[in-house]
Amino acid sequence: MENDAIGRRRWAIAEGYIPEGSHGPKPAMLSHETACLLNANAEAAHVTITIYFKDREPAGPYRVTVPPRRTLHVRFNDLRDPEPVPHATDYASVIESDVPIVVQHTRLDSRQAENALMTTVAYAE
Amino acid sequence: MENDAIGRRRWAIAEGYIPEGSHGPKPAMLSHETACLLNANAEAAHVTITIYFKDREPAGPYRVTVPPRRTLHVRFNDLRDPEPVPHATDYASVIESDVPIVVQHTRLDSRQAENALMTTVAYAE
Amino acid sequence: MENDAIGRRRWAIAEGYIPEGSHGPKPAMLSHETACLLNANAEAAHVTITIYFKDREPAGPYRVTVPPRRTLHVRFNDLRDPEPVPHATDYASVIESDVPIVVQHTRLDSRQAENALMTTVAYAE
Amino acid sequence: MENDAIGRRRWAIAEGYIPEGSHGPKPAMLSHETACLLNANAEAAHVTITIYFKDREPAGPYRVTVPPRRTLHVRFNDLRDPEPVPHATDYASVIESDVPIVVQHTRLDSRQAENALMTTVAYAE
Repeated sequence: MENDAIGRRRWAIAEGYIPEGSHGPKPAMLSHETACLLNANAEAAHVTITIYFKDREPAGPYRVTVPPRRTLHVRFNDLRDPEPVPHATDYASVIESDVPIVVQHTRLDSRQAENALMTTVAYAE
Repeated sequence: MENDAIGRRRWAIAEGYIPEGSHGPKPAMLSHETACLLNANAEAAHVTITIYFKDREPAGPYRVTVPPRRTLHVRFNDLRDPEPVPHATDYASVIESDVPIVVQHTRLDSRQAENALMTTVAYAE
Repeated sequence: MENDAIGRRRWAIAEGYIPEGSHGPKPAMLSHETACLLNANAEAAHVTITIYFKDREPAGPYRVTVPPRRTLHVRFNDLRDPEPVPHATDYASVIESDVPIVVQHTRLDSRQAENALMTTVAYAE
Repeated sequence: MENDAIGRRRWAIAEGYIPEGSHGPKPAMLSHETACLLNANAEAAHVTITIYFKDREPAGPYRVTVPPRRTLHVRFNDLRDPEPVPHATDYASVIESDVPIVVQHTRLDSRQAENALMTTVAYAE
């Protein structure tokens, strides 16, 4: 499978929104948005994330590395360099990798006492 | 990336339903359905939305413009021209753009005290 | 658009489960699973649904017609002919149409006081 | 349909997380993650699942068989051989079959009194 790992090199998540406020114990129950990255290759995946907004120029690139045969669940809340992702703000993201990866998007919304969850495989091409 | 922006020109969301009634502070917690549009191009995306119903002719086209390198999260609740989208009514939508875009569908349902969320990348071709 | 309507002719939903029990006013808050069908064609879509189970032969075909330029949100709960879909039972479905359609899957789970929602575009080929 | 069953042979689910703790009656309300497999073929599908982690080598292959014209909703919680899938741990999965199948991913999170649900068709190629 090593020379033919599953995935694509370019992905997009058009929905983005980190809710302001949380209920429940952190970090598990902290409101968050996640890009789950799977790298099934025998080599590391060097990934760049660009964040798009409604009314300003894009932020990034944010850089993360997924080691060979590993998954990394990146919380947008945790991105710091070059700048944090603002909360309570609409955004979208493009995720590019030098080797094929698989990207899935998840939001846990714990603004209220009971959580809400959503997920989708990202758009790939 | 400018000449090769991510996305497709034709999208569809077969599910559509704006719940009647909401709990919690507006506008964040207002029950809504959203089409999240990402335009990663260097030029504006001119987008038309057509709404299909169960028992009448389609409504639209609704027209929105997404500026270059921006995202726009369109709430179906907010569409007004040529006519508002009725609540508590099944609908579906086709979204067409003159440049490639990415479309993701989200519903926040706050009819009850605790919210429910769902999302999916739209169907593209 | 009439001769080139959006969609595919063959779809599958691998997840299927109608929860037993509901809270809240019917029919809106009745626990249900839905296949949202969009027919953007100028002609009717003749659709057959086959239901697969874990431990018995498939049921169906169930037949529904989606008129031209209409959407139909089919609740699996409402399928009666040739037989009702059992509740609290894992199933999956294959949806075939004579013209291109778009299919999206949704479940509203109201077994508890607060609803849960999920959706995904179905698998197409 | 027998020689041309719907689906693909290679699938991936980049999101994986079995919540620790549940509310409500088991097994229906036990927190779980499921890979719903649909085998519409006239022959059995021999499926292998490989689980990827953040900081250790992958686990598996786990082997399941889906009989002809059946669906199997595999709970990751129930995988035991070669080892159980740890709870409260990020993972991802690659699902491979010798005949075409369709894969959909679902999580029921019942850590709190009211459930949350999410689903997506898996990534296929």
